Amino acid sequence: MKAVETISDIRKIVNKAGKAGKKIGFVPTMGALHDGHISLIKKSVKDGNFTVVSIFVNPTQFGPNEDLQKYPRPLKADLKICKENKVDVVFIPTPEEMYGSGGLTWVNVEKLSQPLDGRFRPRHFRGVATVCAKLFNIVCPDTAYFGQKDAQQAAIIKRMVADLNFPLKITVCPTVRESTGLALSSRNRYLSADEKKDAVSIYNLLMKARALIKAGLSNPKTIIAEMRKIISNSNSLTGIDYISIVDLQTLEDVRRIKGKVLIAIAARFGSTRLIDNLIVDSGKH
Amino acid sequence: MKAVETISDIRKIVNKAGKAGKKIGFVPTMGALHDGHISLIKKSVKDGNFTVVSIFVNPTQFGPNEDLQKYPRPLKADLKICKENKVDVVFIPTPEEMYGSGGLTWVNVEKLSQPLDGRFRPRHFRGVATVCAKLFNIVCPDTAYFGQKDAQQAAIIKRMVADLNFPLKITVCPTVRESTGLALSSRNRYLSADEKKDAVSIYNLLMKARALIKAGLSNPKTIIAEMRKIISNSNSLTGIDYISIVDLQTLEDVRRIKGKVLIAIAARFGSTRLIDNLIVDSGKH
Repeated sequence: MKAVETISDIRKIVNKAGKAGKKIGFVPTMGALHDGHISLIKKSVKDGNFTVVSIFVNPTQFGPNEDLQKYPRPLKADLKICKENKVDVVFIPTPEEMYGSGGLTWVNVEKLSQPLDGRFRPRHFRGVATVCAKLFNIVCPDTAYFGQKDAQQAAIIKRMVADLNFPLKITVCPTVRESTGLALSSRNRYLSADEKKDAVSIYNLLMKARALIKAGLSNPKTIIAEMRKIISNSNSLTGIDYISIVDLQTLEDVRRIKGKVLIAIAARFGSTRLIDNLIVDSGKH
Repeated sequence: MKAVETISDIRKIVNKAGKAGKKIGFVPTMGALHDGHISLIKKSVKDGNFTVVSIFVNPTQFGPNEDLQKYPRPLKADLKICKENKVDVVFIPTPEEMYGSGGLTWVNVEKLSQPLDGRFRPRHFRGVATVCAKLFNIVCPDTAYFGQKDAQQAAIIKRMVADLNFPLKITVCPTVRESTGLALSSRNRYLSADEKKDAVSIYNLLMKARALIKAGLSNPKTIIAEMRKIISNSNSLTGIDYISIVDLQTLEDVRRIKGKVLIAIAARFGSTRLIDNLIVDSGKH
């Protein structure tokens, strides 16, 4: 496995693989790799790709009061994980390599970037879309792999790829969870033991919402009220940014549940902000 | 020469040429081809490229009160010109093919899109950058050719390509002029005979400015005042949007002329808005 830091180096390696007839699979990450990332890597390898992982803690997707500085950067462990999982090349650019003297160009996916996390992290998705556009142009993958855990991110990137005609396919893989149900996240390592126990309530309330929908409830307000009751029992809960039931395509709140809906939540335990979501098929038309 | 209307068709053709080891040269146009466009095509052919011309009157770069509807679309003549000049394939998508059910994604090049034409055409360069990003992703050229006549557009596209790491080179070719000095533009065909005669004053005042700078004047205000005197003698002049002397990189007004500067002008003759520019090396440091 190779690990390179420059755009010209990764381009050379990927071009060579492409010319040798290989398909390029790309897993963009911010590092601090866990079983969720590994599932994307495994999927790319299983798909027969020459697999590229990028590790880049992208400053432009962090807000001024967010955790850019303290975001975990366990590079040695990350490289070990990549090697064990048959990654072909890891791209680890510096912020200077990616943004040089400061980019003026932004990619913005309107509407989809506004609701849910967009309300609480105003420029987050502009940073995500822009860095993904850059990485797609650098790595030129045939397929890029994203996790369903970041549902809004996945929807935005899919839309950007369609709207800007990027010549690649986006594959979204299922959320990976601990046995307790807690969705894996690099930010889970911020949690104390008690906070982590409490954070499982996120999964429990998603399951509760699922059960209510399957039982025939179609008013989102009723379901969300039930969910708020459950989560409010968590001792270390310090805030709920949103609990929303939204349309899969537009990410807008639904008035009445029909077809498939996305249940999305963002909540804080101690000083750690967690997000999770579930797609539920109501069976209603 | 082939002419295709769908994204999948042009992709197939370009992929095949690329696999045969050919370099792809791309000339994006809105049609109504003139000797300026032809100089770009000839440059691409001379560079040894498999040459792709797109003809697409891009609605997203026109303002609500601009000339989208009346913009000339002489497709038959355009195709003849392409064929005569050894274009390999012409891509003529419909607006539906390019924008489908309505794109949500915009590429914006901040700062460079604000001054000059940006002040008078607020969303123009956002439309230009976005459609070029789309076309670059569709055609995947090695080199794309733009005219210096649209200096701000060229600066913005170069910046977008650098900022978003598009794997291609931008070549900017000199402005082509009539023997009178009038810069070629598809919009010149809107001009009456008298307006066309008057519009030559744009070139004359650029030449005057050049002479003043070469003579050692370094205060832009003095030079611009002289330029305004010359152009105001034109009978059919109906407005001057701007006469500016700006930095080549930032496109911001310079306070004192040194090194190379861009002299840029936008003025209206009758109901037709024309732009022109000149790069002048002051020789000062």
